[in-house]
Amino acid sequence: MHLDLNADVGESFGVWTLGDDAAVLDVVTSANVACGFHAGDPLTLRTTCAYAAERGVVVGAQVGYRDLAGFGRRFVDVPPDALAADVIYQLGALSAMAHVAGTRVAYVKPHGALYNAIVHHEAQAQAVVDAVVAVDTSLPILGLPGSVVLARAMAAGLRAVSEAFADRAYLPDGRLVPRTEPGAVLHGAEEVAARVRRLALEGVVTAVDGTDVEVRAESVCIHGDTPGAVEMARAVRRELEAAGVEIRAFAG
Amino acid sequence: MHLDLNADVGESFGVWTLGDDAAVLDVVTSANVACGFHAGDPLTLRTTCAYAAERGVVVGAQVGYRDLAGFGRRFVDVPPDALAADVIYQLGALSAMAHVAGTRVAYVKPHGALYNAIVHHEAQAQAVVDAVVAVDTSLPILGLPGSVVLARAMAAGLRAVSEAFADRAYLPDGRLVPRTEPGAVLHGAEEVAARVRRLALEGVVTAVDGTDVEVRAESVCIHGDTPGAVEMARAVRRELEAAGVEIRAFAG
Amino acid sequence: MHLDLNADVGESFGVWTLGDDAAVLDVVTSANVACGFHAGDPLTLRTTCAYAAERGVVVGAQVGYRDLAGFGRRFVDVPPDALAADVIYQLGALSAMAHVAGTRVAYVKPHGALYNAIVHHEAQAQAVVDAVVAVDTSLPILGLPGSVVLARAMAAGLRAVSEAFADRAYLPDGRLVPRTEPGAVLHGAEEVAARVRRLALEGVVTAVDGTDVEVRAESVCIHGDTPGAVEMARAVRRELEAAGVEIRAFAG
Amino acid sequence: MHLDLNADVGESFGVWTLGDDAAVLDVVTSANVACGFHAGDPLTLRTTCAYAAERGVVVGAQVGYRDLAGFGRRFVDVPPDALAADVIYQLGALSAMAHVAGTRVAYVKPHGALYNAIVHHEAQAQAVVDAVVAVDTSLPILGLPGSVVLARAMAAGLRAVSEAFADRAYLPDGRLVPRTEPGAVLHGAEEVAARVRRLALEGVVTAVDGTDVEVRAESVCIHGDTPGAVEMARAVRRELEAAGVEIRAFAG
Repeated sequence: MHLDLNADVGESFGVWTLGDDAAVLDVVTSANVACGFHAGDPLTLRTTCAYAAERGVVVGAQVGYRDLAGFGRRFVDVPPDALAADVIYQLGALSAMAHVAGTRVAYVKPHGALYNAIVHHEAQAQAVVDAVVAVDTSLPILGLPGSVVLARAMAAGLRAVSEAFADRAYLPDGRLVPRTEPGAVLHGAEEVAARVRRLALEGVVTAVDGTDVEVRAESVCIHGDTPGAVEMARAVRRELEAAGVEIRAFAG
Repeated sequence: MHLDLNADVGESFGVWTLGDDAAVLDVVTSANVACGFHAGDPLTLRTTCAYAAERGVVVGAQVGYRDLAGFGRRFVDVPPDALAADVIYQLGALSAMAHVAGTRVAYVKPHGALYNAIVHHEAQAQAVVDAVVAVDTSLPILGLPGSVVLARAMAAGLRAVSEAFADRAYLPDGRLVPRTEPGAVLHGAEEVAARVRRLALEGVVTAVDGTDVEVRAESVCIHGDTPGAVEMARAVRRELEAAGVEIRAFAG
Repeated sequence: MHLDLNADVGESFGVWTLGDDAAVLDVVTSANVACGFHAGDPLTLRTTCAYAAERGVVVGAQVGYRDLAGFGRRFVDVPPDALAADVIYQLGALSAMAHVAGTRVAYVKPHGALYNAIVHHEAQAQAVVDAVVAVDTSLPILGLPGSVVLARAMAAGLRAVSEAFADRAYLPDGRLVPRTEPGAVLHGAEEVAARVRRLALEGVVTAVDGTDVEVRAESVCIHGDTPGAVEMARAVRRELEAAGVEIRAFAG
Repeated sequence: MHLDLNADVGESFGVWTLGDDAAVLDVVTSANVACGFHAGDPLTLRTTCAYAAERGVVVGAQVGYRDLAGFGRRFVDVPPDALAADVIYQLGALSAMAHVAGTRVAYVKPHGALYNAIVHHEAQAQAVVDAVVAVDTSLPILGLPGSVVLARAMAAGLRAVSEAFADRAYLPDGRLVPRTEPGAVLHGAEEVAARVRRLALEGVVTAVDGTDVEVRAESVCIHGDTPGAVEMARAVRRELEAAGVEIRAFAG
């Protein structure tokens, strides 16, 4: 019984800091490091990779749209060839940062609006897959179960890794409750920890209607951008360890 | 007897094109490809690397300040640790582009104001060298003879490659006539070609006072950003070939 | 009988030039000047406004998405409050440039993907209208006949100005033939000039099926980004003047 | 007896927040609002101006180098004509934001490395002055006593306003102790408050050698980017009010 915990880090930019990366990197096994397009100035990326390497946390490339002002959270209708090039560029940039920090980029996790777009957007999903294939066919893509991008990744011979969300409510069909609906995000650290333990041990979470829904995930996404989020992440880790679940990176 | 010809390419950005890269890549043996900070959107970089690979032209990373609005031609007082990270980021990004195009980054040539700054600026010169050392100690740095950056490169165990400028007038002491002075830039294709031939065969150029000045250069920088520049580049190549000088990349 | 001719100008950025603004500003009566978000560095904007002022060409603000890499041609899903602020920012910036050049911003024309989005996108259309209302209720918005943005502009008490496209084919219902279809863009300068003359004199253009379609437009959009485009623009102007149509700005 | 208190606000960018603007705007009489080049996305600027207007705080334009990654703290060798255009652009953008918030830009305070550069840099200082003159000759420039920019401002007929720094140590000749030296920045809220009171009442501060140094300033710059800074700002205000000094904007 094992599970990976992943979180976004390296999302500061210049004078602006975001999240407590040091605290997060003490909890997770996989670090989705920003690549400079939605966040992450080069010095931040270097420092973050060094810290991850020191902690033995596996580095993933959190590629996103070129949109600092929107933090990559706004869909951008980038043509596929430009998007593929943007992804290759970001992968390369972060790879160099990881390399100088004594580690390497071991997987790819698209960020924000790109993550959401390629759940459905065929052309952009394919562009991301094409980029990863061109750079390194050994790189898994981490994404939403049932998404187009994971299907395309598998079709292209890449490893597709599904993730669950620790603090999100699920519909009975296994999809997430949209953020616009009440109760979409869970806030109780102990409740969240208990849910993740069940996910790890039984492969199910309790849906909003009280039924059990099967969720297959090799990794669980947690957050660290607020003090409360870090505390929740720690609770999840403690709960899993207490339950005998090995917290282990899925890649690297 | 051999000489390398290098030129800047990949300096378009989005809808904006600059230079006739296809024509330039038919003339030179080394392509200083922009890396996105002063110019070069990712799709342009990918296309440029592919074209260079196809032509057998060696790819170098033309790293610069993060300054699209100024095209990297304005000195920016970046602290050394940030500059080193900026250089690593750019090297990584272009390396991925070169990789997917079937080639690799084989040298580093700083661009514009950074090139000029690190002729003298100790801290920035060292930062560039540190970045290259951290990424790959086999990468030569191409720069101005006598510059601080080449001295630091050698001290760090890197190969330091000196270049001459085909269309620039020289002072009797081997330095370039500043651009602000009349006659600093030469415009006659045949004159320029003859000078480069002499440089290749005898290791000297005629200085502005008519004396011969020794110029040691493994590479000659030519331009391709105007139709006249491309014509001049072709004249240089023809003249060298006619004189039996092998046009050969210094790296790769 | 009078008609306005408008064209995009000020779309250079730093070292990169686009179009022959001087030639275009000798032909049109309204200049859609970029505002820095999709194109147009401040010095270019200042120079362009000065040139327009000198020629007596009315200045309009060509507001766009914050997307230099995509030249504002990619839809960005900006939330309405951020989009309104982006538009206000751009209007203010260009207003200062116009002011120091001795003229003023006299209308607003959204650019590229924003122009296309607000033909249908209710929230973004309203955001653009809200921004213009907040800045200056005397500013007309120039857009596509029948678009949501023009309807919202009128509802908000703004003047809504419809434009036709000199070089675009029309469907029998008055809509443009999509660019993805063959024959969407017309290339013959004389044919285009004749069509615009008919539009000015009779208020109709010949649709792709040969029928006449009524097109109500106070302004006709022409292009100047290629030598051929400038020649076509001149042909349009000559034809209109020969037909006794006064070429006159709709605003200012 | 009166004094102005100024502080930097509006320096968030997108998802990244900086400082507690609401708290700062409850203390100061003049708000140096960022203009988007070193910080400040348009929505932040709009919100900040609205908050300042609501509080009756006078809005100034904190113009800076185009350098988000460096927060405008790195000297950029921008040519004077480009710098003047950059300043005009920023002034216009913020003016529109102030206008829609029911207030107006009432002064100009250059930011960061630009502020420091134009203490000495003649060409850049003149460019800033030229820009302000071109936009509105009624706008004062707030800067360092004895700086080139204030001298040039006066020579151009602008009002030049000198500021002192609440938390900085002074040399006996009235210059600031460089930040690189120990003791350059003062941290005790009560000590700082007492110094500012003396500045307001007697026009002197105690220099690092214990002597009194005359400091003429119409405004005192305070900070609000940390909880401690806000507390210090409040202490300064309380101390001044207790001493009967009127806290009053110098412009507006």
